[in-house]
Amino acid sequence: MSVPMTKVTSSPAKDRWGPPYLLYLGNAKDRLSIKTARGLAFWRPEWCVAQYAGPNCAEKLDLPMMDFKAAKAAGVDTMVLGVANAGGVMGDDIRSDVIEALRAGLNVASGLHQRLSSDPQIEAVARECGRVLFDARFFPHSIPVGNGKPRAGLRMLTVGTDCSVGKMYTTLAMEREMRSRGIKADFRATGQTGILIAGSGVPIDALVADFISGGAEWVSPAREDGGWDLIEGQGSLFHPSFAGVSLGLLHGSQPDVIVMCHEAGRQQMRGLPHYSVPSLKECIEANLTAARLTNAKVAIAGVALNTSLMPVDAGIELCGQIERELGLPCQDPVTMGTSKIVDRMLECVAK
Amino acid sequence: MSVPMTKVTSSPAKDRWGPPYLLYLGNAKDRLSIKTARGLAFWRPEWCVAQYAGPNCAEKLDLPMMDFKAAKAAGVDTMVLGVANAGGVMGDDIRSDVIEALRAGLNVASGLHQRLSSDPQIEAVARECGRVLFDARFFPHSIPVGNGKPRAGLRMLTVGTDCSVGKMYTTLAMEREMRSRGIKADFRATGQTGILIAGSGVPIDALVADFISGGAEWVSPAREDGGWDLIEGQGSLFHPSFAGVSLGLLHGSQPDVIVMCHEAGRQQMRGLPHYSVPSLKECIEANLTAARLTNAKVAIAGVALNTSLMPVDAGIELCGQIERELGLPCQDPVTMGTSKIVDRMLECVAK
Repeated sequence: MSVPMTKVTSSPAKDRWGPPYLLYLGNAKDRLSIKTARGLAFWRPEWCVAQYAGPNCAEKLDLPMMDFKAAKAAGVDTMVLGVANAGGVMGDDIRSDVIEALRAGLNVASGLHQRLSSDPQIEAVARECGRVLFDARFFPHSIPVGNGKPRAGLRMLTVGTDCSVGKMYTTLAMEREMRSRGIKADFRATGQTGILIAGSGVPIDALVADFISGGAEWVSPAREDGGWDLIEGQGSLFHPSFAGVSLGLLHGSQPDVIVMCHEAGRQQMRGLPHYSVPSLKECIEANLTAARLTNAKVAIAGVALNTSLMPVDAGIELCGQIERELGLPCQDPVTMGTSKIVDRMLECVAK
Repeated sequence: MSVPMTKVTSSPAKDRWGPPYLLYLGNAKDRLSIKTARGLAFWRPEWCVAQYAGPNCAEKLDLPMMDFKAAKAAGVDTMVLGVANAGGVMGDDIRSDVIEALRAGLNVASGLHQRLSSDPQIEAVARECGRVLFDARFFPHSIPVGNGKPRAGLRMLTVGTDCSVGKMYTTLAMEREMRSRGIKADFRATGQTGILIAGSGVPIDALVADFISGGAEWVSPAREDGGWDLIEGQGSLFHPSFAGVSLGLLHGSQPDVIVMCHEAGRQQMRGLPHYSVPSLKECIEANLTAARLTNAKVAIAGVALNTSLMPVDAGIELCGQIERELGLPCQDPVTMGTSKIVDRMLECVAK
């Protein structure tokens, strides 16, 4: 089950799902709950034909509204459940909509915790209609534990001061920047939204604990074409709930370069008001020290600063201040791009 | 499903398993493959009535041989699968022996990867005979992710330069030493052998990655009686395959004190000949730095040196040398006990 990384196909083989997409918002309550749909629409607009919203949907995207039959008629291949419920479970409304979409001839991909294929009725309808189900949080492959062996290729990993500071956006922005320069670069997804954007990847935080670094090795294998793997980071070495995931990902990625992601103004660690966000300097040092275990030559290419919560001018000024303090490029990938960070990254490996 | 921690009972309630034990060796090929049985016999000799060996068993323990019926007649409650196969799966010989043991009236506990309860025939026979199955590598509880909140109680965690250097033995030796002084202290198991010894615990490396630190918090909850939780460590921050597990366990344990475990003479990381074992000093510093995230007052109490591969005199000399170099007590817990390490640990928290 994979989708083409660059081309849109409207008639995938029977065991495949892929774009064009209908983004399912259901009865989303707020902005945060359509994070996955928003990420897809932002990073892969050419794949997103339409959205479907329920009668009580409070947040929408800037896309045409279509029901399942209209979407099928418009050439949509797959409906993506781009909505996060409390607990990641499917409500009855989502379940019946999924079944209706399958009957209308759409494949269905989901980023929910609860698997589509764990629902006997959905599974039966998909089989009956010859449609494909894809669960981004489920990893069906059997992989070995990490072996730490040096492997060919160039790899960048985004790391962070905290969870949800913009690691996926930064990684995708760097892919866009590098491809615009004609450099081979591929986003490697490690979370459910990233997997739905990339069409493949490893849901790293859903693996059994012993296989974290093995999962990172799997998603960015040896590469001989001179191109870059740009690996989506997760969590933070300084987040007491998830640091183990971050460390295993760091070791398995064997990055040549890391990029530090941070949200301007964030004071406390996400979900843990009793923990302060570490300083950029401390966090960079800790990541470099840990990363050296599997790649002694690792370097830091810059800081990706999420300034979405502050005025534009203040964001520009803060980036300049961080650049002077740390001697590293600092940009907001969404509003300023990543050209300076990519320049520095290429310098790092040219040495 | 739990066993009494200190008393032996021969007639547990119907949903419980426990000692007295029959240790099942099957057709073990070598010393390493009966590691679990050997650990049980060494640390809980009062629980281990007999052993059962197949016709091709190459390694045995110093226990009476009994078949299943004889063991039942001798008062055994539970047969423990104390043997590790390649891949942790049950062969046909083990499967048929388990069924025979259930029919003879024994409960069965297992440290294998493959779950007893995943075998429909074993499950059916257990139900038919009213016997209990226990899988030490399976964690049936639903737990939250770690929250990093400070909690009451005193906690020690063993950490290591590598995997398989003696963290479980060190933790159990410290429990023995402390109890002999009348100090309340309880071994908290995080691996399958430890869980079979303790009768409960969390198989930390079998948890989903997001729940590592939550698992550590679960196994050593807030404690108000002035006693110690002695937590069995796993892996090493310097092992590229498993460091994520070690870091999550370190953060979730919030140890007041760590004890560094090392095998004298080991040059390469287990299973990774391309990685050198870190120096004790470097490894201690890295663990203290990481541990401070959730407990700023963490201290190092000493070094537990596994000297089993060297002559006794050389082991004693090496311990002295390490003590002078690091200014910390250093003992082989099996041959020298842990009195100096425990003394230092108590000093650390008395400050």
